[in-house]
Amino acid sequence: MRAQIGVIGAGDCAPEEHRAAEDVGRTIAKGGAILCCGGLSGVMEAACKGAKEAGGITVGIIPGTGGENRYLDVVIRTGLSHARNVVLVQSADALVAVGGAYGTLSEIAVAMKIGKKVFGLSTWEVPGVVACSSPEEAANAALDAASRSGGCHSPRER
Amino acid sequence: MRAQIGVIGAGDCAPEEHRAAEDVGRTIAKGGAILCCGGLSGVMEAACKGAKEAGGITVGIIPGTGGENRYLDVVIRTGLSHARNVVLVQSADALVAVGGAYGTLSEIAVAMKIGKKVFGLSTWEVPGVVACSSPEEAANAALDAASRSGGCHSPRER
Amino acid sequence: MRAQIGVIGAGDCAPEEHRAAEDVGRTIAKGGAILCCGGLSGVMEAACKGAKEAGGITVGIIPGTGGENRYLDVVIRTGLSHARNVVLVQSADALVAVGGAYGTLSEIAVAMKIGKKVFGLSTWEVPGVVACSSPEEAANAALDAASRSGGCHSPRER
Amino acid sequence: MRAQIGVIGAGDCAPEEHRAAEDVGRTIAKGGAILCCGGLSGVMEAACKGAKEAGGITVGIIPGTGGENRYLDVVIRTGLSHARNVVLVQSADALVAVGGAYGTLSEIAVAMKIGKKVFGLSTWEVPGVVACSSPEEAANAALDAASRSGGCHSPRER
Repeated sequence: MRAQIGVIGAGDCAPEEHRAAEDVGRTIAKGGAILCCGGLSGVMEAACKGAKEAGGITVGIIPGTGGENRYLDVVIRTGLSHARNVVLVQSADALVAVGGAYGTLSEIAVAMKIGKKVFGLSTWEVPGVVACSSPEEAANAALDAASRSGGCHSPRER
Repeated sequence: MRAQIGVIGAGDCAPEEHRAAEDVGRTIAKGGAILCCGGLSGVMEAACKGAKEAGGITVGIIPGTGGENRYLDVVIRTGLSHARNVVLVQSADALVAVGGAYGTLSEIAVAMKIGKKVFGLSTWEVPGVVACSSPEEAANAALDAASRSGGCHSPRER
Repeated sequence: MRAQIGVIGAGDCAPEEHRAAEDVGRTIAKGGAILCCGGLSGVMEAACKGAKEAGGITVGIIPGTGGENRYLDVVIRTGLSHARNVVLVQSADALVAVGGAYGTLSEIAVAMKIGKKVFGLSTWEVPGVVACSSPEEAANAALDAASRSGGCHSPRER
Repeated sequence: MRAQIGVIGAGDCAPEEHRAAEDVGRTIAKGGAILCCGGLSGVMEAACKGAKEAGGITVGIIPGTGGENRYLDVVIRTGLSHARNVVLVQSADALVAVGGAYGTLSEIAVAMKIGKKVFGLSTWEVPGVVACSSPEEAANAALDAASRSGGCHSPRER
């Protein structure tokens, strides 16, 4: 299996976060990983756009049953509202956080709780989150962490 | 977006159900759709095996955070236990049921509740489920239903 | 702990189902058990009304975060949409089904899957469901089943 | 309806947090509100113990289907793992946080996201959380906030 990298951030974001998310998505796709996100607008859409431009695969785990962005290959219609954040974090082998409001904080907290690595770009300062200085650095660190966590191998092959 | 066809059935199945599920998966992949399932063994694994042999894409929406089969491209680790059945049904544009026990019945019931078509092979007789006589017939009917439900187009393009 | 009896049925029900659900609720309350339901209208509301008239305690496990009926002591705002059905079934020590459409069928299926007893009044004929001929018979059978399943004792006292 | 106050905190807590949680639970019960929590040990158990000693009603929304503490009147067996945190926050009209690790941080974040007030005792410093200096102050502030949010009235009576 390919690694699954989660990208988290607000549905309504500033232009520089949009550019950063696109770069994160592009780097994840170039690294051969699948990009997982919340499937909506803002950081999520920008990351998917970047990944698709680089020929990657994108998965959107949405809170309802519609309203997903146009850059998704797979859409998981959870209908779980805010509880879908937990499904996203659990599905990722490692995560990149770009900016983000309270929803992103809840995802970072769940990631820390279950031991998933989070690499942050101008995001919440939570103990355990690794602050990065560029989108490429954050995405590559997540790819590396996912690789070391065994995320890129089938559970039966290990 | 490609259509997403759900395949539902028991994690422990008879050899003829295994063969049927493999044929269903193969036909879905040849039809260009993404196969979504519960990601575990039995009917789920057989359908994924068939889809991968035909070059398709497979998504497993699992109840826990591990134990998925080896034929998955994407694994959604819900951690929701039995509630993941609802996420699967909602994520599918149409479904094929192969045999199945009580878990499959719960999925058929949710599908009927929310208006998703289910094409059945030796499965529960529930009003609304369309009984089919071969794996190819069931899979092709699901592909056709998904196409007509708009499942193969982006929500923003319609 | 008191036993928790689930009452399931449609949100839109016929007058005779409404009367039956009220009787079921009343009998559950008289039996000293807590009534759990989906918290909305129809069978759910009628059962709660009956239970409150007999001095019982009612719990509504609702799909969204509002719209609950007025006869609830406790409201669990799941925000899970249809997945809340699974939470309800798991929370009940035994269940009574009054009529019901596809949503009720999904709850019966999950109950059978996890080994919870369901006593039915003019409901779906699913293998394992015990058909009853009166509301009192169904409610008393559920009280008895819950008692035998250990549902009326604290897990630490057993 | 009575107000529902959520108490959040770690399952493994220090003696002073245990005492604080008990005081919080006692004050909530004396205020006539229902105490909702995650239903397990530590802060959750201590708060329930305090509430029961003061004659209150306690509700535990647990992540699995067992393992709840002995001071619960109602147990909601979600089977949702970490996603149950979201159900708890949504079910509370206001919350008190006592200490807490990453799970508590995820609950605080969801509460802020959906506009629920959180009153904190030695907990995470998150913008929007109101720091309190005693258990009684925190519990009374939560009772007051729940009252003003309409949490103590039936939605149909407003």
